[in-house]
Amino acid sequence: MEAVGSLASGDPQPPGTAEGTAPIDRSGKEAASEGSSVGFVLVHAGAGYHSESKAKEYKQVCKKACQKAIEKLQAGALAVDVVTAALVELEDSPFTNAGMGSNLNLSGDIECDASTMDGKSLNFGAVGALRGIKNPILVANKLLSEAQKGKLSAGRIPPCFLVGKGAYKWAVDHGIVPCPPDVMATKFSLSAFRKNRRKLELAEKVETEMIQTKKRREVSENTNVTASLDTVGAVVVDHEGNVAAAVSSGGLAMKHPGRVGQAAVYGCGCWAENTSGSNVYSTAVSTSGCGEHLIRTMLARECSVALQSEDAHQALLETMQKKFVRSPFLAHEDSVLGGVIVLRCCRCSLESESSLNTRALLVEFLWSHTTESMCVGYMSTQDGKAKTHISRLPPGAVAGQSLAIEGGVCRLRSPVT
Amino acid sequence: MEAVGSLASGDPQPPGTAEGTAPIDRSGKEAASEGSSVGFVLVHAGAGYHSESKAKEYKQVCKKACQKAIEKLQAGALAVDVVTAALVELEDSPFTNAGMGSNLNLSGDIECDASTMDGKSLNFGAVGALRGIKNPILVANKLLSEAQKGKLSAGRIPPCFLVGKGAYKWAVDHGIVPCPPDVMATKFSLSAFRKNRRKLELAEKVETEMIQTKKRREVSENTNVTASLDTVGAVVVDHEGNVAAAVSSGGLAMKHPGRVGQAAVYGCGCWAENTSGSNVYSTAVSTSGCGEHLIRTMLARECSVALQSEDAHQALLETMQKKFVRSPFLAHEDSVLGGVIVLRCCRCSLESESSLNTRALLVEFLWSHTTESMCVGYMSTQDGKAKTHISRLPPGAVAGQSLAIEGGVCRLRSPVT
Repeated sequence: MEAVGSLASGDPQPPGTAEGTAPIDRSGKEAASEGSSVGFVLVHAGAGYHSESKAKEYKQVCKKACQKAIEKLQAGALAVDVVTAALVELEDSPFTNAGMGSNLNLSGDIECDASTMDGKSLNFGAVGALRGIKNPILVANKLLSEAQKGKLSAGRIPPCFLVGKGAYKWAVDHGIVPCPPDVMATKFSLSAFRKNRRKLELAEKVETEMIQTKKRREVSENTNVTASLDTVGAVVVDHEGNVAAAVSSGGLAMKHPGRVGQAAVYGCGCWAENTSGSNVYSTAVSTSGCGEHLIRTMLARECSVALQSEDAHQALLETMQKKFVRSPFLAHEDSVLGGVIVLRCCRCSLESESSLNTRALLVEFLWSHTTESMCVGYMSTQDGKAKTHISRLPPGAVAGQSLAIEGGVCRLRSPVT
Repeated sequence: MEAVGSLASGDPQPPGTAEGTAPIDRSGKEAASEGSSVGFVLVHAGAGYHSESKAKEYKQVCKKACQKAIEKLQAGALAVDVVTAALVELEDSPFTNAGMGSNLNLSGDIECDASTMDGKSLNFGAVGALRGIKNPILVANKLLSEAQKGKLSAGRIPPCFLVGKGAYKWAVDHGIVPCPPDVMATKFSLSAFRKNRRKLELAEKVETEMIQTKKRREVSENTNVTASLDTVGAVVVDHEGNVAAAVSSGGLAMKHPGRVGQAAVYGCGCWAENTSGSNVYSTAVSTSGCGEHLIRTMLARECSVALQSEDAHQALLETMQKKFVRSPFLAHEDSVLGGVIVLRCCRCSLESESSLNTRALLVEFLWSHTTESMCVGYMSTQDGKAKTHISRLPPGAVAGQSLAIEGGVCRLRSPVT
């Protein structure tokens, strides 16, 4: 595995002006996998702010998710199931804002969004504002796989998107074990909720006073609700070259009950498309950040479309600049917060091989974010262990206006031609 | 107002091979509006099946919605509010599958989806699986307008998409009057529900027997749930040249509780974008039909993008063929059901005018559907009354595989340069 051009810039800059980038491990060498299937996984534990003090935990979560995915890939599982397995690990961590330990909403409840897309069938499954299920991604995956079975009784079309109580009922009816809401809230998420509630009360008091005294609105940044944007996600390519993507989120802290973010919205939270007549590359994308910004820019699909152009790094950089930070859909936003992980792959011949039949999967993977930081992990079936990394904006760069972009490339010797 | 090339074909054919098209009224002439603002509205009462026996009612609904919109336009209202006013009329009709008289779900409840997009601000508001609100479009419009006010207290980002109970609570907290669920169900929707429930019981009994006797699955079409796809929608251009779009739906009959269709999904139910640096035309689109098909093909946005090309009719025809009926995202579907109404407009000079400052808005409008029929209505501020029309596939054409496309063009003398 080797690093491709990487960039973290204050103002968005053309690639090559590397500044403040964290080093990427270049030790992973191309190697043939022996006796097991090949594949690659890239995960993220959110674009947001990852404190140095908790860096170890975030990396550990990503590592575990990668290892789980690689075990599945080696056992021959397909991308759409591998990506779900990775997400379950990410959701189960109390440090991520997904599944266990998710942000609480304004009423003190946990409501989760999740979705997944299969690049092979192009099927999609999503749940929104789902309560009482520990792993929302399992419901999204089940919706996707049930839809592949064809129509329901009496010619009814199976749903691809369920929300709220109906989603909960469907999940339980389909064998997914419910989870008492108090189990999903952690000490940390409850403490954050109480702090945020106090901030909210204070902010509303100050604003009421301002209206009464007709003062200009100038609330201190310190009274803002703590932004926990640590949505999780993963992108995978399997031994057949199929790609899949998934995303899961507890949503913004102190969100209104019933609010659905990008993690449940088609084209916004994740995207996966296998190579086809019109697509040279298979592409998979998962997003993280402010749900409303990611919905209105349809960032996952935009990245996927852009990745069909020749230079993946340049394509992602331009998409993040033109279709996200400076998107006309967010013209009135002073701060545009989000991040993506992407991969694209294609088959290529291994030049130095004696056997003419040996082909490889060339996997290019990248991450980019406008948030302070983004925690990622990645691993191929040829690696002994997962690499993890917290990407940060360079010192002085302004979150919401600047971006960082980094990535790597990996060749997988594939037994399938 | 004059008709442009119209087409209804068995197998999709190039434009010009008009076959089985219904005549379009050509009497509406270009005229200057006197003392009031100009504008244009196109509405639909769904792509589905409109029986001859109820044709009059469907047309009447569309007429009323057009008249309401034109009154608002003449009073100087902006597109985003005009489109909402039209939708309220469409929702209030017991004949449409939106608001009052919506399809009941599997549990016998009414859950509605609706969304709206403003081409000027590019803001979007949506509700999904909403119960107990007579006019879901009012909540979507309110979400859009509230978001334009900027951040909430303590720096929180306002939601653009709310579902279920949370959406209901938000609506009531924002002054929208709730409606007892039994008022929203009509004699007709309750009777359809009872019929469908019997069909479902029968179908499930037959299927269980087939599994037991290991017979091949060959359920008669007659046992299928009656497909009421009559989602409603509208597209509008106002005197400033702003466009807006909206859509509202009770969803598929006998859907699973919590199921959300295209009417609540960004890019799928409606789309509106004013002219800008990269867009020569302002475009607005509203879709109708099978929600899952319209989600997975992102049909509203696809049509909007296509409408930037030179020939609107050809662009819509190709989009319906390549990105809908033969979409790779629906490769395994034997029948792809849906319809769209679209408009695009641009400013042009009036050649025969003495005053050089007089400019006009050129509005091109079209509808296309793969369903048996689609009921539309349209009117400009220069027309004395609305035109309504039930577009039908020609005899012998197969719904879900063939399509019809028709439309017109209208010049509005605009006081704004």
